Amino acid sequence: MDNASEVAERIMAGEVRAAARLMRDLDDGRPEAREVLKLLYPKSGRAHVIGITGSPGVGKSTLTDRLIQHLREAGKTVGVVAVDPTSPFSGGAILGDRIRMQRHALDEGVFIRSLATRGHFGGLSASARAVISVLDAMGKDYILVETVGVGQDEVEIAAAAYTTLVVTVPGLGDDIQALKAGLLEVADLLVVNKADKEGAERTYQDLLLMLDLRTAKTPDAWQPRVYQTSAKKNRGITELMGGILAHQEFLQRDGGQALIAARRQRLRQEFLDLLKEGVFARLVDQMTKNGRLEAIIQDLLERRTDPYSAAETVIAAALESATR
Amino acid sequence: MDNASEVAERIMAGEVRAAARLMRDLDDGRPEAREVLKLLYPKSGRAHVIGITGSPGVGKSTLTDRLIQHLREAGKTVGVVAVDPTSPFSGGAILGDRIRMQRHALDEGVFIRSLATRGHFGGLSASARAVISVLDAMGKDYILVETVGVGQDEVEIAAAAYTTLVVTVPGLGDDIQALKAGLLEVADLLVVNKADKEGAERTYQDLLLMLDLRTAKTPDAWQPRVYQTSAKKNRGITELMGGILAHQEFLQRDGGQALIAARRQRLRQEFLDLLKEGVFARLVDQMTKNGRLEAIIQDLLERRTDPYSAAETVIAAALESATR
Repeated sequence: MDNASEVAERIMAGEVRAAARLMRDLDDGRPEAREVLKLLYPKSGRAHVIGITGSPGVGKSTLTDRLIQHLREAGKTVGVVAVDPTSPFSGGAILGDRIRMQRHALDEGVFIRSLATRGHFGGLSASARAVISVLDAMGKDYILVETVGVGQDEVEIAAAAYTTLVVTVPGLGDDIQALKAGLLEVADLLVVNKADKEGAERTYQDLLLMLDLRTAKTPDAWQPRVYQTSAKKNRGITELMGGILAHQEFLQRDGGQALIAARRQRLRQEFLDLLKEGVFARLVDQMTKNGRLEAIIQDLLERRTDPYSAAETVIAAALESATR
Repeated sequence: MDNASEVAERIMAGEVRAAARLMRDLDDGRPEAREVLKLLYPKSGRAHVIGITGSPGVGKSTLTDRLIQHLREAGKTVGVVAVDPTSPFSGGAILGDRIRMQRHALDEGVFIRSLATRGHFGGLSASARAVISVLDAMGKDYILVETVGVGQDEVEIAAAAYTTLVVTVPGLGDDIQALKAGLLEVADLLVVNKADKEGAERTYQDLLLMLDLRTAKTPDAWQPRVYQTSAKKNRGITELMGGILAHQEFLQRDGGQALIAARRQRLRQEFLDLLKEGVFARLVDQMTKNGRLEAIIQDLLERRTDPYSAAETVIAAALESATR
């Protein structure tokens, strides 16, 4: 790898190959790659990050595809992060879908990156954030992050976006339940996709009702909106895009106080994630090298101690001396 | 709360109310509750833990319901942990389902516990394991753990079971993709549920083919099996139960070497999870109290540092002095 500042310069100049290379190096856990991230950091924070989440099969990828198209036509540059093993963006779907998506592969203004495993940052959300930072430093205007909306990691990633779209389809009873169980809380915009299907109006009304039933918010908070789309038929996309822009404007009003608050929240989570993974990795590394880890596992297996007590002892020994 | 050893005694005697109370106390993060867990630990490790995982809508809960029924008829006691926001066991599904499940609520030999949030252990998998330990110490013969098979946490929970069932349904193209992306690796038994639906035979053959295509295993490794069931119509359950017992016997042959290996792997993961969450919680607590955390977030917001460097600095300061 070339020296870190040179690589950072190239990426900040928007060089696709340098960015792709860095992302591979990050996947491979190369320490130099992390040095590049540090250099890119001051140049990031300008892109608008949009999360697109929902169960498999609700049409997130097709919707993402339409949003890319819409943003490109408006002259915006776009980065895509697909944190979804079933997404055609990550090569996971049937051939027809994959080919349809690849039209953007030839467009210099679009950079698509898929993430399927945790990678060397330990957490999927930390890996996703690293990729977002790179796309951001490249100067992308919008970054679309597609996630399957089940699982804590993925809810976290969705929540890390400035504008979060939660996508559902008509008649998916289970999905509405999943929405209740957490996703509704992170949604800035709700999308009923495949709105040409039976039951779309019902699902739309159900979502409006659910939003109404939520505990009262402060009057100046954002009121989530519900949209009906048919991504396949390219219907309702303009209206949805209008909603995205309205939310973006909402975050920017009053000198961008809401945006700063959102950014602070994101930074806190990003720092804490890195801290958590980093301190754990270092501690396990130490314990592996000095044989302590295997000794503890053996004690546990023979029930000479329990996992709770063993963890407490290790933590006390590791941190106490530093704080004394 | 009563004193820890008294509570532990009651739970080990199988007292449902004491167990339910402990689980609530664990949710509330009461330190005494953790003391009880430590005492229960020597008495756990005897139950056979079965993971049941798959996308929403594949019928995991109905299948779980049938397995409970089958195990109860064989005179076995059963614990259920539902780590699935859409599960009727956790009160998340439509009314009909919930009522159907409640027949077990009146059966003393069945204890059902649902988990929807991370709880005070930090991770969903740590919370699930704590509940499994309690059910185990209560003397349950079988513990069924139902999870939605998307998301890293849930794959981890599934992998923590001794016998893992991965459930799918005919014609769910996306689901087969998701299987490829990780779940297949953890499956001891694959279940094509709703096997009376069109395309069941095709899905069955696809799964057999996928298993064949996996990289060659050592000859004495378990060869995953595929079953077709219709949980709703109570078909194929006896055969599936036979597969579960065959896997359980496989783990126990040769003096239980495979079971010990599986238990060692589980203990390692359990200890490491507790270590990770514990060391992080302690560090954040220290940093919050001395104001360091807010100072770092402000530095990050004003781009005086980057999250990677900030985390490295904190970790070095926290751990270095202890290891010198």
